[in-house]
Amino acid sequence: MRSFLFEALITLKDGILDPQGIATQKVLKRLNYSVYNVRFGKLVTFEVSAEDLETAKKVAKEITYRVLINPVLENYELKLVRESENG
Amino acid sequence: MRSFLFEALITLKDGILDPQGIATQKVLKRLNYSVYNVRFGKLVTFEVSAEDLETAKKVAKEITYRVLINPVLENYELKLVRESENG
Repeated sequence: MRSFLFEALITLKDGILDPQGIATQKVLKRLNYSVYNVRFGKLVTFEVSAEDLETAKKVAKEITYRVLINPVLENYELKLVRESENG
Repeated sequence: MRSFLFEALITLKDGILDPQGIATQKVLKRLNYSVYNVRFGKLVTFEVSAEDLETAKKVAKEITYRVLINPVLENYELKLVRESENG
């Protein structure tokens, strides 16, 4: 078995209100920073133990879609960070 | 002025307990996924309006350190995603 480290970058879909982003942007404006479009998302890292990369990718995609995101509100992007022997 | 889109990848420092990661890992184990080291972090995107890239980077770093992260518990990585004319 091999170990595959994935990174799931989870962002709100366009048009979905982001109260945390709006609140943060107000704070930054009060501190006189010229910043806008502040949007919060999730970054989830996890290791999958699998025979090969294809299997690991399939598991990672399934986990992300079933458990980590809300498919109605969120998009996701999966990145393989590292592959290693143990696992 | 130009507009610079940044991505701040914010993760918990090693050794800091991640209750959300632990809870998620338990759920995944119950669903028979061979997954471990589940860790949650934040992904914040924001646009900085500045004269040049150096100034924008300085602002982005300052914003991230002062407002977006808790320096005691979290690490961060800043990525420039896109640079554009308006801003």
